[in-house]
Parts: sequence; C-alpha cells; structure tokens
Amino acid sequence: MSFTVRILGSGSAIPTSRRIPSSQHVMCCSRSILIDCGEGAQLQLRKFGIKFQRINHILISHLHGDHYFGLMGLLSTMHLLGRVVPINIYGPPKLESIIQTILEAGESRFAYEIVFHAINDDFSGKIFEDEKIEIHTFPMIHKIPTHGFRIVEKSKPRKLLADLAKKDDVPVECYHRLKNGEDVKVGEILYRSSDYTEQGDPSKSYAYCSDTMYNEQMLKEIQNVDLLYHEATFVEHLKDRAKETKHSTAMDAANIAKKAKVGKLLLGHISARYDSGDIHLNEALTIFSQAQVVEDGDIFEIE
Amino acid sequence: MSFTVRILGSGSAIPTSRRIPSSQHVMCCSRSILIDCGEGAQLQLRKFGIKFQRINHILISHLHGDHYFGLMGLLSTMHLLGRVVPINIYGPPKLESIIQTILEAGESRFAYEIVFHAINDDFSGKIFEDEKIEIHTFPMIHKIPTHGFRIVEKSKPRKLLADLAKKDDVPVECYHRLKNGEDVKVGEILYRSSDYTEQGDPSKSYAYCSDTMYNEQMLKEIQNVDLLYHEATFVEHLKDRAKETKHSTAMDAANIAKKAKVGKLLLGHISARYDSGDIHLNEALTIFSQAQVVEDGDIFEIE
Repeated sequence: MSFTVRILGSGSAIPTSRRIPSSQHVMCCSRSILIDCGEGAQLQLRKFGIKFQRINHILISHLHGDHYFGLMGLLSTMHLLGRVVPINIYGPPKLESIIQTILEAGESRFAYEIVFHAINDDFSGKIFEDEKIEIHTFPMIHKIPTHGFRIVEKSKPRKLLADLAKKDDVPVECYHRLKNGEDVKVGEILYRSSDYTEQGDPSKSYAYCSDTMYNEQMLKEIQNVDLLYHEATFVEHLKDRAKETKHSTAMDAANIAKKAKVGKLLLGHISARYDSGDIHLNEALTIFSQAQVVEDGDIFEIE
Repeated sequence: MSFTVRILGSGSAIPTSRRIPSSQHVMCCSRSILIDCGEGAQLQLRKFGIKFQRINHILISHLHGDHYFGLMGLLSTMHLLGRVVPINIYGPPKLESIIQTILEAGESRFAYEIVFHAINDDFSGKIFEDEKIEIHTFPMIHKIPTHGFRIVEKSKPRKLLADLAKKDDVPVECYHRLKNGEDVKVGEILYRSSDYTEQGDPSKSYAYCSDTMYNEQMLKEIQNVDLLYHEATFVEHLKDRAKETKHSTAMDAANIAKKAKVGKLLLGHISARYDSGDIHLNEALTIFSQAQVVEDGDIFEIE
C-alpha cells in the first residue's frame, strides 16, 4: 500500500509567496490524514487535487496560529460541499472550544459530526488504531504545549510461498493462519509457518515534529522511522534565537535524525527571512546525509 | 487625494483558485482601510504590494468565516513584523471575544493594541471620523447580523479664484476663511466668499454591501455613492436559492444600484459554482449600465 507525504505548507509564522504556514497531507494504507492546517491549506489541497472529503483525521500539533488558522475554513468548505461523514480532530483541549465559539458566533452548524479527541499536555501514546495503521503522539518542547505525531503501518502478514504450498498440497484454508505465523496441524500433518511463508514487507513509518526545540527526550518516539519531518526554522547563525523561541536549527534537526537513525530527514517550517533553504541544507548535510529541505507541493513516497 | 478600492477576494464561502473569500483594501485620503478579511487576505496584500503596517482600520461585516477567517493570521503577521501602532477593528461584538480566545489559547500577546469598536446588531451611524474622512455603517439583511459600510471624503473647501483675489488685493490672511465659505470684513471692505471662490471638488464616496439579500431599506445609506460594491452570489436561475440563503442575485444588485443612483456598481461575492462572471454581468447590464464583475486583484479609482 502506498504511503505518501504531501507538503502543503513549509513556512513558519509569516507566510510568503513561496511558503505558506504548516500543513501536510499523509496517505497511509488509503487513510487520508491532514497534519496541521495553517491558513491557506484548503487552497493547497485543491491545487494538488487532494479530495477534501476523503480526509478523516486531522492532527493539530499546537495552538499557534500558523498551525491551525486554516482549519475552520477547511471544515466550513467540507460542510458546504456536502460532507455528512464524521471527521476526527486530534489536538489541544482548547481547540474544541475555539471551534465551538466560532461556529456559535456564525450561527453555523455543520451537517457532519466533529469527533474531537483532546490531547492533554503531557500525553504520550496511541491516539488512533484500525486494522491497517496506528497514529501515536508525544510531547515536544515549545513555547506552548505541542505534540509530535508518528504514523505507522501495522505489522504486515508473512508472505505465502505459494508454489511450495501447492506442491505439498497444503489445504487452502490453512494459508491465512500460516501467514499470521501459526503452525497448522491437519490430521497427522503439521504445516509449519516458517516452512511455507517468508517475512512480509516491513512496516513503514513517518514522524512529524513541528514545532520543537532540540529535544532528545523524543528520540525514543521517532527511533528508526523511515521518514522524519523536523522543523528547522533557523540556521546556525541564529541558534540563540532558536533557543529563545524554542525552535530548532537545521543542525538540531539533523542531529535528532542521526541519533534516531531515521531513513530520511525532511526540513521544513523555514523562517520567512530565508529566500531559499540552501543554508539549511548545507548545514544539515554536515551531520546527516539523507536530508532535504522541502518546498510547498513536494510529495514524498515512503518506499 | 486618491480614493481607490483594491479587490483582494471576490469569492463567496468556498474559495477557488480564481477567487478567494471576501476582502478588499481601500485607500481614502491616505487612510488605509481593510474591509473584511477572508482566509488568504494577507497573502493578497503581500502580492499587491500593500503595506500591512499602514492599515489602521479593519471593518468586519459579519461573522461568517469567509469574511474574517484571515483576520487572526493578518494580526499575527503585523505583530511579528514589529507593529506597535494600535489598530482599530470594527465588527460584531462577539468578534472581540473570538480574538481574545484565540490569543489566550496560543499564549500570545501582540506588541500593539487592538482597539475594538463593537457594532451592535441594529446600529446605524458613524463609526469613524477625522479631518478628512468618515466611515458609516448600516445593517443589512442576511442570515446573521451583518453590516454594510460607507466611506466618504469630507466636504472639501471651496477653491480660491487666485487671480481675482490678487487683482483686488484681498489680504492673504483672508484666503482660508473665504475658502471655508465665510465673508470677511477688513476695515470697511467686505470680501464675499462667493465672489472670490468657486465650489470645491465634490466629495467622493464608496459603499460596501456584502452579504445581504435585496434590501431597499439600505437605499438611503448608499444614495448617490460614486462606487458601490454589492454582493451578487447568484444569478437569476438561482434566485430562489438567493432568497433562501439571504444573498443577492446580480439583478438584485443592479436594481439597488439603479434605485440608489450610484455612479458605478461592482459585483462580487461570486459563488464558486460559476466559472466566470459573464452571466452576472449580462443580467446586471439589462438594468444598470455601469456595472462590472470584479476579479481578485482588480483596482478601482474613484475619479
């Protein structure tokens, strides 16, 4: 199953013509997930042909406006376009009352249900699970309570060695249990899973860490993910400013990626003061070779 | 003095790549005024080179999101770019608490003051005045309390007939009073204003009416304005839908423009269902010849 991350907004608090504020869209095992929803996110979804109504989960990292000021507009458009399917929103507890306040002020009521999942300040753990994927969250260190997210495919079944199973006349009704790792006895014959199956495809994973200062406490949460998006608001010449505002530099992000042994690092949340991400990239590459600065519209497939 | 209206967003509730939600920027006698602030307004301001920090008045018509979901982002950017000058916001009373709720949730505080001017539901009258301009507001008829706005230049002084005044040796210190319409006696000589001055340039005026259904009650508020922006969400084939949602058709807007004897009519707030505004224009022109459908980015100068 495909696992993709589309960058909708890679900027920080001040939008520019090149980078709008934070937002991205993740497709994992056909689950359509939005992470953060800065102003303009709905226009980016439209631009990149992402179907609004298929989004079923919206994860909001924190309540700085550049991470959620596009949310109400998107929810409103979903309603106007006829949505009736409930939507799940995960975020800081106060977000629910903000949504209600704005709806009441406009005397508005959506035709679909908002199922709100409050993420308390220090919560760490699983916030969603179905048969295919899990979504986990964990606290980061920023000026206000902020959470990162990890989206993982569930363990995949072992693959049947079909030719061998047929040759040995393994009954078809045993296949499912064999793929799940069970040995199956039929009469006197024992079919061992290890004989008739091989390891399934590895589960893939993605982590989103924005906004946060350099934070080794979260290493355990993002260890070995295939793809990590980490904020890199600043570069080294403003590392003091990064600390003061509880943001990261590109080298902070690269150090985290290296220590967490991630497959690939995406750098985003680039401050409006930088015309390009060239300095970010060069600095990150001195520490971690699999780094890339993202642009709005970039899409990444986790292979 | 120049009096211009720049359309930032001419769409209705659902943004499209062609039309973002309602917002426009008015320059009147060097006063920089924003009317409504839909999502994306700050990016349009940037695109059209309008200086954020010179905006001193923001008028919000009502609390449907397509008229104000860009406000918090703009206010935040003003702060981040170093604003310290207070800003005046005029809008429904609940807007003030929405702003406060959002600021508190983000533990944010702006370095400049927001001077909030609540416009109560049935209020009609002047909301701002200085030596050059006045801003008036008046209720419209929509699904929730909504106000229109009229921006007017103050009466201009009469123009001195300088050659005649010099020829007759009128003392220079009398000029100011003569221009203000006063007759001035110096010793035994009476200088009459009507002899030495002629009528000044006419005062110009602009009215903004969005959102509203067809509403003759507001004719007195917009009578003879030089330029009228009136919403025209729908065209005739959806006139029932217009009534039901308390919006207007292009012909409603044209009838209002004709009855109010305005100089020129701008049609906006075009529903996302229409690819172009051609039908709107054709229908409006059957009633009022000085009509135009606006596009995002259009600028109009009131001559």
